[in-house]
Amino acid sequence: MKLTCNRDNLIEGINIVQKAVPSKSTMSVLEGILIEVGEELRLTGNDNEFGIVYEVPGIIEEIGSIVVNSKTFGDIIRKLPDIYVSLETDDEGNMLHITSGKASYKIKVMPPESYPPVSFLDTNNAASISCDLLCQMIKETSFAASLEDKRIILKGVFMEQVANEMNFVAIDGFRLALKTAQMDESRDFGVIVPTKILNELVRSVKPDDDKIIKFCCNENQIMFYTDMFRMVAKLYKGDYIDYRKMIPREFKTTVTVSTKSLLSAFERAVLVMIDEKRYPLTIKFSQNDDVLVHVNAENGTVKEEVSADVVGEEMIVGFNARNFIECLKVIPDERIVISLTSPVGPCVIRGSEDSSFTYLLMPIKTKG
Amino acid sequence: MKLTCNRDNLIEGINIVQKAVPSKSTMSVLEGILIEVGEELRLTGNDNEFGIVYEVPGIIEEIGSIVVNSKTFGDIIRKLPDIYVSLETDDEGNMLHITSGKASYKIKVMPPESYPPVSFLDTNNAASISCDLLCQMIKETSFAASLEDKRIILKGVFMEQVANEMNFVAIDGFRLALKTAQMDESRDFGVIVPTKILNELVRSVKPDDDKIIKFCCNENQIMFYTDMFRMVAKLYKGDYIDYRKMIPREFKTTVTVSTKSLLSAFERAVLVMIDEKRYPLTIKFSQNDDVLVHVNAENGTVKEEVSADVVGEEMIVGFNARNFIECLKVIPDERIVISLTSPVGPCVIRGSEDSSFTYLLMPIKTKG
Repeated sequence: MKLTCNRDNLIEGINIVQKAVPSKSTMSVLEGILIEVGEELRLTGNDNEFGIVYEVPGIIEEIGSIVVNSKTFGDIIRKLPDIYVSLETDDEGNMLHITSGKASYKIKVMPPESYPPVSFLDTNNAASISCDLLCQMIKETSFAASLEDKRIILKGVFMEQVANEMNFVAIDGFRLALKTAQMDESRDFGVIVPTKILNELVRSVKPDDDKIIKFCCNENQIMFYTDMFRMVAKLYKGDYIDYRKMIPREFKTTVTVSTKSLLSAFERAVLVMIDEKRYPLTIKFSQNDDVLVHVNAENGTVKEEVSADVVGEEMIVGFNARNFIECLKVIPDERIVISLTSPVGPCVIRGSEDSSFTYLLMPIKTKG
Repeated sequence: MKLTCNRDNLIEGINIVQKAVPSKSTMSVLEGILIEVGEELRLTGNDNEFGIVYEVPGIIEEIGSIVVNSKTFGDIIRKLPDIYVSLETDDEGNMLHITSGKASYKIKVMPPESYPPVSFLDTNNAASISCDLLCQMIKETSFAASLEDKRIILKGVFMEQVANEMNFVAIDGFRLALKTAQMDESRDFGVIVPTKILNELVRSVKPDDDKIIKFCCNENQIMFYTDMFRMVAKLYKGDYIDYRKMIPREFKTTVTVSTKSLLSAFERAVLVMIDEKRYPLTIKFSQNDDVLVHVNAENGTVKEEVSADVVGEEMIVGFNARNFIECLKVIPDERIVISLTSPVGPCVIRGSEDSSFTYLLMPIKTKG
């Protein structure tokens, strides 16, 4: 194996495939990056739950495959002095020789035969989505998936298309996040993608890129890909919850308020709590007043006032602070509409301009 | 107790005194900040090894003293919505009422009587030094102090003045760092200051300030101070090593080399080591060649070439990589002079322009 490539292209490839390399594994080969040199230089990271393959342009002199320790290889390439890097294995294939400028390394390699292959999916029915929109849909839903629920399906995001409408849904026991987008082509499918995979995808493809991501799935796996990049992940199996039934359509009180002001008030209010799960944010919504936020917790008490437009019945409702704050952090609208059914019924939060995002939050009991 | 002050001034004060507040203590009062309101608002943090007192301007309405939990108080003040903050205790003195804009808090307080006082030193014989120079002297020496030596004196920096010459010295078993400065006034003293204290001082006073720091000491303590700031710390007791004897004056080989090039080469070379203490950097200095750096460690081998001016005998010397790198990181000169006595004798490193900094490094055994 012998080739020359651009250092910064190689660094970018390493950064991306390393997301699928476990830092510790019982199989040392999985702590490595598979380097395959054929027509292109191809890097692979694979932790058995998902794999990433990335192609780096290079001048190929001799084909071949090796596995190198991901951390050692990455740390060396990132610090090389020259913009060009040559990679060459010795005759026995035991060592990789890395040269760049006046720096020269020999590092140990592992045989590629023991590395688990990443098998690609059939792309005949692949769908396309803009990278920006995909990242936004993930960001606005994945935070609401459960971290610890016994039902594994709640640890994933339900990715569903019905005709031209694409929905991303995440639910834990106390909340639901739903993001909807219109797609050009009609399709019907629904799969549950592990939250971790989607978050790694956002980090790999970078939201501000102007590019298109394609994806395709079968019963067991999903593949997201571009020209240079392929990510293949296992799906969670099971039937997802019928989330449409959970979202109320009639409300007694609606509140329009600045997202930022409410977020700041809540972030200050949590400072008196040591255990955030034990203490509710008690919020009073009333037509004649500012919204009043009150907390009484281990370290003291807080009162905050936030100006808002309130329409409907006066209501005092308790919320889990962290669940409300996480919603306010992802919502891009300057103002939000909070729609309340009762002090114990579900509350719905949407942006005041854009209704493609719906957040449902269950109240918790207030004290006194 | 009742007063109003500027939020950002208060935040600055909290940030500084928190350096002396332990995050966990068996005495919960030590996890607090002492707030004393007399003619000024005065904040104190004290972890029994050192204390910091900082004065914040404020409009005082009622004098008094309390202790508040440092983390809770700091987190709240940093997030307040308005630039002005009022602090007021209730009639029983059990709660502190914090208000700022539309935010209002009540947090628990602790009685000030149980808080250990910080006693100030007599300032009649105080010395003055520019903040910049003091920080530079600390930065160029404290890294070389021992972290784990049984002799406690090696965990400190020896701060010594002989007539008009001030010396800061740090030594561990394998190296010595010495920084010298000329002082306006003649004095004679030598004290051993815990490294931790000096590093906290640098963080508190900020090196780029144009100001003057005063300091004074007795047998047990040292105090650094400005108008608003006082830091009092316990000294280490014992006689310091006669460091002057350790520094050789005659050399067989001298090498002038770019600090940055050598540092980059060394930083790349350590990447093949897992345990940096086990493997030497083997360096060949020769009049006719570049400096050759070679490492053979767990993860592979490295060769680096760095151009340099070498005068004297050819020599192959082994060094601990981390000890050499730490010196190169603090030396401000673009080029350094490495002066070698023999492959087993001490090596001296100085800046090529500024001789006020001396670093002595013992070689280690090379393999083969």
